[in-house]
Amino acid sequence: MQHSQDFQRKPIDPAVLDALAARFGAQFQTGAAVRAEHGRSEAHFEPALPDAVLFARSTGDVVDCVKLCVAAGVPIVPFGAGTSIEGNALPVRGGISLDLTAMNAIVEARPEDFDCTVQAGARREELNHHLRDMGLFFPIDPGANATLGGMASTRASGTNAVRYGTMRDAVLSLKVVTPEGKVIDTARRARKSAAGYDLTRLYVGSEGTLGIITEITLRLHPIPETISSAVCGFETLKGAVDTVVQSIQIGVPLARVEILDAKQMEAVNRWSKLDYPEVTTLFFEFHGSGSGVAEQIAMVSEIAGANGGGEFRWSNLPEERAKLWKARHEAYYAAVNLRPGAVGWSTDVCVPISRLPECIEQTQADLARASMPATILGHVGDGNFHVIFSIDPNQPEEMAEVEAINARIVRRALDMEGTCTGEHGIGLGKQHWLVEELGEDTVEIMRTIKRALDPRDLFNPGKIFTL
Amino acid sequence: MQHSQDFQRKPIDPAVLDALAARFGAQFQTGAAVRAEHGRSEAHFEPALPDAVLFARSTGDVVDCVKLCVAAGVPIVPFGAGTSIEGNALPVRGGISLDLTAMNAIVEARPEDFDCTVQAGARREELNHHLRDMGLFFPIDPGANATLGGMASTRASGTNAVRYGTMRDAVLSLKVVTPEGKVIDTARRARKSAAGYDLTRLYVGSEGTLGIITEITLRLHPIPETISSAVCGFETLKGAVDTVVQSIQIGVPLARVEILDAKQMEAVNRWSKLDYPEVTTLFFEFHGSGSGVAEQIAMVSEIAGANGGGEFRWSNLPEERAKLWKARHEAYYAAVNLRPGAVGWSTDVCVPISRLPECIEQTQADLARASMPATILGHVGDGNFHVIFSIDPNQPEEMAEVEAINARIVRRALDMEGTCTGEHGIGLGKQHWLVEELGEDTVEIMRTIKRALDPRDLFNPGKIFTL
Repeated sequence: MQHSQDFQRKPIDPAVLDALAARFGAQFQTGAAVRAEHGRSEAHFEPALPDAVLFARSTGDVVDCVKLCVAAGVPIVPFGAGTSIEGNALPVRGGISLDLTAMNAIVEARPEDFDCTVQAGARREELNHHLRDMGLFFPIDPGANATLGGMASTRASGTNAVRYGTMRDAVLSLKVVTPEGKVIDTARRARKSAAGYDLTRLYVGSEGTLGIITEITLRLHPIPETISSAVCGFETLKGAVDTVVQSIQIGVPLARVEILDAKQMEAVNRWSKLDYPEVTTLFFEFHGSGSGVAEQIAMVSEIAGANGGGEFRWSNLPEERAKLWKARHEAYYAAVNLRPGAVGWSTDVCVPISRLPECIEQTQADLARASMPATILGHVGDGNFHVIFSIDPNQPEEMAEVEAINARIVRRALDMEGTCTGEHGIGLGKQHWLVEELGEDTVEIMRTIKRALDPRDLFNPGKIFTL
Repeated sequence: MQHSQDFQRKPIDPAVLDALAARFGAQFQTGAAVRAEHGRSEAHFEPALPDAVLFARSTGDVVDCVKLCVAAGVPIVPFGAGTSIEGNALPVRGGISLDLTAMNAIVEARPEDFDCTVQAGARREELNHHLRDMGLFFPIDPGANATLGGMASTRASGTNAVRYGTMRDAVLSLKVVTPEGKVIDTARRARKSAAGYDLTRLYVGSEGTLGIITEITLRLHPIPETISSAVCGFETLKGAVDTVVQSIQIGVPLARVEILDAKQMEAVNRWSKLDYPEVTTLFFEFHGSGSGVAEQIAMVSEIAGANGGGEFRWSNLPEERAKLWKARHEAYYAAVNLRPGAVGWSTDVCVPISRLPECIEQTQADLARASMPATILGHVGDGNFHVIFSIDPNQPEEMAEVEAINARIVRRALDMEGTCTGEHGIGLGKQHWLVEELGEDTVEIMRTIKRALDPRDLFNPGKIFTL
């Protein structure tokens, strides 16, 4: 496992724990099991235990926790569904894991304005369930049933981003508790504004390092008149990627387009008990009017045919579509479980779309030489793809091998003017690459903002960069 | 005229002027005429002269200017086309007006990735001229032929924002010269990234207060297969606004939808020598495939008919469309010139779209009682509209009257959960309203960032807020 403990971890003052217990009663817990739950991640990072866990029920709870912790110099690390991939929520310097999952209310949905306000612990699947009868949906879909607060904090995106954007685009406004214990709203509900610095976008993607997000106002979209999903296998990986790039370039408004390589299809078939051909495959979804969707399908089918694509296997009924996308969403777990007892190491990069075919092809060549199972899957319409390694936690040389392959993948993406992380965030795992991507001077601007807004470095310290 | 001089203006050290003259030669000018050109705005603000003007030709020029000025405590105010509306580029504390219009190169267009990089002084019309043969266009269109740097700095949007977003969405990356004289790139070209704080969005809309933008990488879009424009008059203002709101609510992907009230149509007819009926009017543009556009038109025509709309007057030929949108773009000048010798005072607010009908109706009632000509026009699909007053600069009581009406308009928008500025920025004119909109604690976060990144308050000082 990758080392996660921070050498700057300091012992906590027991008086703070007493004060938090007095204020919060049963919401405040220090038992070993609950600390362990909040000290692990889904990825390959070593656990890092918090000193205690606070289950917040309101913005007021968060304010009180912040005031007590900041006064005593105790770190605070917000915690949602725990599905982040880069160790983003691990309390590497100890302190309080601030669990927001009980703050899961859908505060208000406003169908007439296509927006809603939710608490940070609300999850995207529950939100979409709530919205369905209004004819609306929230499109951002990172796969996991993450909390909206966690998704905002890591600037998540996922399968629909090619059409509907990322959390950067979806968030209209945030309620944030600052390190001074103030509660601020970053914006009004208007669809656009030129009123001062874009604090909304500053907090989106800041991984809890600048403040605790407690409420989120989100843009919604009408459920399309027609939705059509299809799966198509390809003779070559290049043919699949070229199909996507060419479809985008002629302006087809794809709603979803996901690539899964042959190994990933093998994993999906095994995990989700399906029978797709085990070749490089694209999962498509088309949204629009009936005639609009028919137009899109005709164009994409023709392009796919010219690039060695097979027949389209359609899923037009809602339950068929749900089954298809459930398989896609479980792809991470499917890939990790290619070996019993393995843990996952997932990396994600994003490049300008014209560079995507060569980027994925060269990555596949790297993986062909790897000694452990590894799959490629990704949101190929954005130029974004993941590699998932299934590693044996008891073989340290596997960790070293994956680190070396990951370095090749990330450096290749950077050489192609891409980014070291399309949607997972920096967390613990990509800090070195952030500097390589943007340069020391750019990262120093980020650190300057962090020092100004959190001068004692208590909000998720040690993430994105170290001060 | 509204008072623009800042009481904190300090005399400039003549040694700095000498050093700048020695470094820059004829690029550096202190003549009265060039200072006057850079010390006025298109709106109602009193002139505020810079001590000198520097015409930058490269990012290196900007770096050298920044280093000399910061060392000597001299303010620097970036200057583009000079078309901003809230006094955003007025050097209220003197110093150097840094004119970027000679940095107008289109550095690279990458049609295969739908992006391009331009220098900050490039203008949107020239960019679109350059892109046309590639089948691409840059959609953000604030009316004026502004520089892309100015548009980024004020988070501009305009007629296409309802479909294509604002400068917030259009900018992929910025090259910025910081107050320390460092040159940073805020992001890579990848379409999305989760790599650290979103500095791109922090600088977009920061009005030159945090750094000088010298290059911009922009998202582009394919020119639609079919473009169709139409004008439609309405019996009532409410009928026009309801048509837009209902069209958005059923999901019609309008590319442009602009409202002009009867007085504005009178001004447009007179200024642009046209013969439209002088009633509340919507200007539409539809983008898509042939059948997609036909579908959109059918839906919107039906909604317009049900809301008292007349016949659609179509402009399908490119030269007809150009004439129509030229008239729309000149609407500001047309409105100001309803009285000879008048100056313009323009305000802009943006509200959630469900509140727009009542917001515009109540505003129209305010204007009916005003003693000077005033028009309403706006990007009604975003919930954003402008009011343009044509005022006599020699009658101070007119200024006071407009200030009072403006206060009513802005407070009404805030009461409806809207913003005090949809697209003009805060500049000098909306500083009080920024605090009212977001609260003192939110604005204090902005000030904290400003102090951290520009500790001597030399980058466009006195704008957005005072420290």
